Amino acid sequence: MLIGFVGLGAMGEGMASNLLAAGFSVQIYNRSADKVAPLVAKGAIASATPKLAATGADVIITMLSNDAVLEEITLGEEGVLAGMKKDAIHLSASTVSPDISRRLAQLHVEKGTHYVTSPVFGRPEMAAAKKLWICTSGDAQAIEKVRPVQEAMSQGIFAFGDDPGAANIVKLSGNFMIASCMETLGEVATLAEKNGIAPEAVLGMLTSTIFACPMYQRYGEIVLKQDFEPGFKMALAFKDMNLAQAVALKSATPMPFLSIVQQRMLSGIAEGRSDKDWSALSLASRRDAGLPLSRFA
Amino acid sequence: MLIGFVGLGAMGEGMASNLLAAGFSVQIYNRSADKVAPLVAKGAIASATPKLAATGADVIITMLSNDAVLEEITLGEEGVLAGMKKDAIHLSASTVSPDISRRLAQLHVEKGTHYVTSPVFGRPEMAAAKKLWICTSGDAQAIEKVRPVQEAMSQGIFAFGDDPGAANIVKLSGNFMIASCMETLGEVATLAEKNGIAPEAVLGMLTSTIFACPMYQRYGEIVLKQDFEPGFKMALAFKDMNLAQAVALKSATPMPFLSIVQQRMLSGIAEGRSDKDWSALSLASRRDAGLPLSRFA
Amino acid sequence: MLIGFVGLGAMGEGMASNLLAAGFSVQIYNRSADKVAPLVAKGAIASATPKLAATGADVIITMLSNDAVLEEITLGEEGVLAGMKKDAIHLSASTVSPDISRRLAQLHVEKGTHYVTSPVFGRPEMAAAKKLWICTSGDAQAIEKVRPVQEAMSQGIFAFGDDPGAANIVKLSGNFMIASCMETLGEVATLAEKNGIAPEAVLGMLTSTIFACPMYQRYGEIVLKQDFEPGFKMALAFKDMNLAQAVALKSATPMPFLSIVQQRMLSGIAEGRSDKDWSALSLASRRDAGLPLSRFA
Amino acid sequence: MLIGFVGLGAMGEGMASNLLAAGFSVQIYNRSADKVAPLVAKGAIASATPKLAATGADVIITMLSNDAVLEEITLGEEGVLAGMKKDAIHLSASTVSPDISRRLAQLHVEKGTHYVTSPVFGRPEMAAAKKLWICTSGDAQAIEKVRPVQEAMSQGIFAFGDDPGAANIVKLSGNFMIASCMETLGEVATLAEKNGIAPEAVLGMLTSTIFACPMYQRYGEIVLKQDFEPGFKMALAFKDMNLAQAVALKSATPMPFLSIVQQRMLSGIAEGRSDKDWSALSLASRRDAGLPLSRFA
Repeated sequence: MLIGFVGLGAMGEGMASNLLAAGFSVQIYNRSADKVAPLVAKGAIASATPKLAATGADVIITMLSNDAVLEEITLGEEGVLAGMKKDAIHLSASTVSPDISRRLAQLHVEKGTHYVTSPVFGRPEMAAAKKLWICTSGDAQAIEKVRPVQEAMSQGIFAFGDDPGAANIVKLSGNFMIASCMETLGEVATLAEKNGIAPEAVLGMLTSTIFACPMYQRYGEIVLKQDFEPGFKMALAFKDMNLAQAVALKSATPMPFLSIVQQRMLSGIAEGRSDKDWSALSLASRRDAGLPLSRFA
Repeated sequence: MLIGFVGLGAMGEGMASNLLAAGFSVQIYNRSADKVAPLVAKGAIASATPKLAATGADVIITMLSNDAVLEEITLGEEGVLAGMKKDAIHLSASTVSPDISRRLAQLHVEKGTHYVTSPVFGRPEMAAAKKLWICTSGDAQAIEKVRPVQEAMSQGIFAFGDDPGAANIVKLSGNFMIASCMETLGEVATLAEKNGIAPEAVLGMLTSTIFACPMYQRYGEIVLKQDFEPGFKMALAFKDMNLAQAVALKSATPMPFLSIVQQRMLSGIAEGRSDKDWSALSLASRRDAGLPLSRFA
Repeated sequence: MLIGFVGLGAMGEGMASNLLAAGFSVQIYNRSADKVAPLVAKGAIASATPKLAATGADVIITMLSNDAVLEEITLGEEGVLAGMKKDAIHLSASTVSPDISRRLAQLHVEKGTHYVTSPVFGRPEMAAAKKLWICTSGDAQAIEKVRPVQEAMSQGIFAFGDDPGAANIVKLSGNFMIASCMETLGEVATLAEKNGIAPEAVLGMLTSTIFACPMYQRYGEIVLKQDFEPGFKMALAFKDMNLAQAVALKSATPMPFLSIVQQRMLSGIAEGRSDKDWSALSLASRRDAGLPLSRFA
Repeated sequence: MLIGFVGLGAMGEGMASNLLAAGFSVQIYNRSADKVAPLVAKGAIASATPKLAATGADVIITMLSNDAVLEEITLGEEGVLAGMKKDAIHLSASTVSPDISRRLAQLHVEKGTHYVTSPVFGRPEMAAAKKLWICTSGDAQAIEKVRPVQEAMSQGIFAFGDDPGAANIVKLSGNFMIASCMETLGEVATLAEKNGIAPEAVLGMLTSTIFACPMYQRYGEIVLKQDFEPGFKMALAFKDMNLAQAVALKSATPMPFLSIVQQRMLSGIAEGRSDKDWSALSLASRRDAGLPLSRFA
C-alpha cells in the first residue's frame, strides 16, 4: 500500500515514521523542507507538492494546523485532491471543525475519492511511540480499508459512525476535557498554596488515587513544575476551544466550563503566552489569587 | 486498643465493620438505633451516648454530617470530649470545615487529649470493602499512633502536616475535583447528544483512554445511565462546595469552576433534586440545551 | 439630495419615513414588496433592485439583518455598489461586524465611492419617532456630508473616528450592555420573588432612583410583565452577542459577563425562544431557581 | 422627638447632621471620639456608650459596618437595647444580612421595643446633602412613626412590607446591581481600548443616552479616571456581595453575575486593593486583557 503524508510537524513526523517502520511506502510533503530529510533517511520519498504526494497513493494522510491550511492543501491547484486516483482515501488527522470535514467529504464523493476523518489524541512523544489514540468517522467501507494504516500509528481506534464531522467533535470534546482538567488542577493547586499546604502533596494524593489517569498525572506535574515549553502551544489549543464553541453554539449547547477555559486561554494570549504549553492556562488561577506567576522565582 | 465510633451512616457502618474485622474492640453510638444492632451482631458494644462511646477508648472516631453535628457531638454535655481519657485521640473523619478542626484541636489540647483530622474518599461500598483513601493532618505523634486504625479502614493514607485544617481542605478540594469531573462529563455528553453522536461512545472512548481513572469511569456511567439513587446526596455535596468556597473566600482564591459547580448544585436543589446523587448536577447541561431531563423517557 | 434606502424592516420603515418627512427624495428597495406601498404613499419611489435604488443617489442607506445580507446587497450583481455614482456615500446602518465594514469601506474607496458606518440604537417605535441614537465612524469628510441625513433620523449622533469598524464595535458594546442590564434585572427579580418580596417593588425602587435610565426602566417592566412579543428577536440579539465575542476574541479581551449573556441566549434558543424579545433571556434565572417560567400561569 | 445615633462613619456623620438641621435632638455615640466633636458643635449631645445614646430616645439609629458590630452594639451590656425605653424604635440603617434583622426584630418585640430596617443608598456626599434613598421594612406602625426621621435624612423612602429582612435584601440587590454595572463598564472600556477606540467616547455616548442614570455616569467616570480613593472600600463591598450570595444560596437562587462580581472583588482583594473604591473591580478586565492596570502610567 502506498501512502502519501502531508504535514510533518511534531506530530506528523512521528506518525510518518511509524508508517515507514510498519513497512508502508510513504510519499511525504512538508511546507518547510528541513522536516523532510530525516524521513527520507528512513526510506520516505520526498514529493515536491501535496498533489505529487497524493499521486498514485492508496491513502493520503494530512496532519495540518487548521481549517484554512487543510482547505488549501486539499483543494488548491497543487493540492491532494488534484493528485488522488479513483477510490483513494484522504485520511484527515488534523484537529479541525466538523464543518470542513463534512464539506471536504462531499467534494471527495463527487470526485470518486473518499474522506475519512481521523484525528488523534496524544503529544509528539506519544506519536513517536505509536501510542496515539485515534477517533474516526466517515464512510464505513473506507474506514475499514484504512484500518491497517491507523493501526500502524496508534494504540487504539474508536469509530463514531458515518458523519464525517463526528470524529472532529469527539476530538474537540476531548481537548475540552483536558483543558477542564488543567483548570481544575490549577484551582486546586492555588487553593492549597494559599492555605499553606504543599500543592505537590495535594495533587500527588489525588492524581495517584481517584484521579489516577494520564491526563491528571501528566498535567498535574506540568502545572506544578511550570514546565510550559515546549508543548502544545496555547494559540493552537485556543483555536480548538473556539472550534468546540462553534459546535456548541451551532447545536445550541450551553457549556459554562468551556466558556471559562476559552476565556482563560484568551487571557493567557493577551498576557503573551501564546507559545507556551496550553496548561499555562493554570497561571490565571495564580494571578487571580495574587500569587507571583512563577512558583520558583 | 479500644475504639469508640460515633456516626453509623452509610459510610460509618462499613468503617466500623472493618475495625471489628481487624480485631479492634469497638464501642459504638448512633443517633438512630437501627444502625446499631447489625454491628453489635459483629461484636461491637452499644453505647448510650457519645460520651460513653468515648469513655475508656484510646481512639474515638466521629463520622458525622456537618460542622454543627460534629460540634454538638464533641462538645455537648454528653459529647465525646466529656468522656475521653487523657491522651486519647479524637479521629475526626467527617467532611467538615478546616475552621472547626482547628478550633476543636485547640480545645482538645487544652483538655490533654488530641484531635486528628482524617476525612476519607470513597463511597459506601468502598468503605465496606476497606477501599477508602484517607487524608490526614494534625499532631504528628497522634497521627503516628492512630495509623493502625486508619489502615484498618483504608487502602492508603496521605498526611498533610500539622495544621488540623489541612486534611479538610484536601478533602474539600477532592470533592470539588469530582464535581468538576461531573460537570465536564455532563457538558460533553450533551454536546454529543445534540450533535447526533452517541454519548456512550464518546465517554466510552475518553474514559478508557486519556481519562481512564475511577472518577471519570464511574461517574461517566452514572451520568449516562442517570442512575441517581441512592448515592451521595446533592444537598450534602452542596454543603461541601459551600465549605470549599468559604476556604477560597477566606484565602482570597478565586475559583471559577467552583463557582459554577456550586451554582449547578444550587439549581439542582431549587429544582427538587436535593436527595439525588450529586452527579445529577449533570442534568443542568441537558436542561440548558433544551433536552428532556430523562434520556429514557 | 437624493437618497436610496434598502431594507424596510421594522426599523428601516420608520427611518425612511423620517427622511421623507424631512423633505428628502427617497428611492426604496425591499426584498418583500409589502413594505414598499406605505412608503410610496408617503412619496417614496419604488426601485426594482438595490442597484436601481442606488442609481443617481447621493446617499444610499442600508438597514439589513446581518453581514451576509449586507455583503450580497452591496456587492451582488444587482447590488448598491454597482449603481452608485462617483463620490456617493453608502450609509451603513445595520448591526454588523467591524470586519465587514472595514472590507466594504476599502472596496468603496477603490470604486471612488464612500462607506460610512452608522448603526443606530433604539427600537422600532423610537425609529418612527426620530428618537434613535446614531454612532458613526469612517471618512471624516463623508461623515460631514451625511450629517443632515443622520439628523433627519435621530435625536443625536456620536462620531468615533475614521476606522469604519469603530462604530460597529460601539453598537455591539451597547447591545452587550443592554443584555447585561437584562440579566441583572432577571437575577434581582428572581431573588426578590424567591424571598417573598414583590419584584415590582424592588425594581420599581431601583429603576426610579439610582438606575433611572431608559434601559433599566423599559426592560425592568418587560421582564416583570413577561411581555416578550413582539420585540427584538433573541435570534438576532444572539447574533450580536456572537459578533461582540468575535471582536473580544480577536482583540484578546476576556469578557465574563458577555460569555454569560451569550450562554443565556443560547439556552433560550435551545428552549425554543428564538422569536421572543431578547429580554426573555431573563427567564433563565427563573428556570435555574426552580420557578415556573410564567409569572402569571 | 429625641434621637439616638450610633456610628458616625462617613455616612453616619452626614445623616446625623441632617437630623440636627431638621431640628431633632440627637444623642450621639461613636467608637472613636474624633467624630463626635464636629457634631457636638452643631448641637448634638455626646453619649459615653450606645446604651446612654439610646436612653430616653424615641428613635435610636445605628449605622455600622457589619452584622457582628450591629449585634454587639445592640445586645452588648452597654448596648442600645439595654437603654431603650418601651415602644422606642431601633432604626437600623446598616447594610447587614436579613437574618440579623429578623433576629434582632424578634428580640426587640420580646423587650417591648421595635426594630425597623432602614438601609440607605448613596455615598457620603449624598448623605451630607440629604440625597440618600431609603428602603425600609418591618412593623408597619413603627415605620409610620419613624417616617419624619427617615425624611430628614433622604430624598425618598420605599417600603417593602413587614419582613424585617426584606429591606436588607433590597439593599443587597441594589449593591449587586451597582457592581454589575461596574463590571459591564469595565468590560466595555477594555474592549474599546484594545480596539483603538477611546473608552471616554464610548462610555460618554452610552451613559448620556440609553444608560443615562446616576450609577452609569458616576462609575463610568470613576472607572475611566481610575479615581479609586477615597470611596466605598472594596473589602466592605465584598462583604455585601457575600451577604447577597448567602441570601441567594439560602433561597436556592443561582445568580451567575453575582458569582462573577464576587470573584472579581475577591481577586482585587488578593491583589491588594481592599482599601480602594469597589469600582476598582473594573481593573480585573484590564489585567485579564493584558493591559497595564493604570491607564496613565
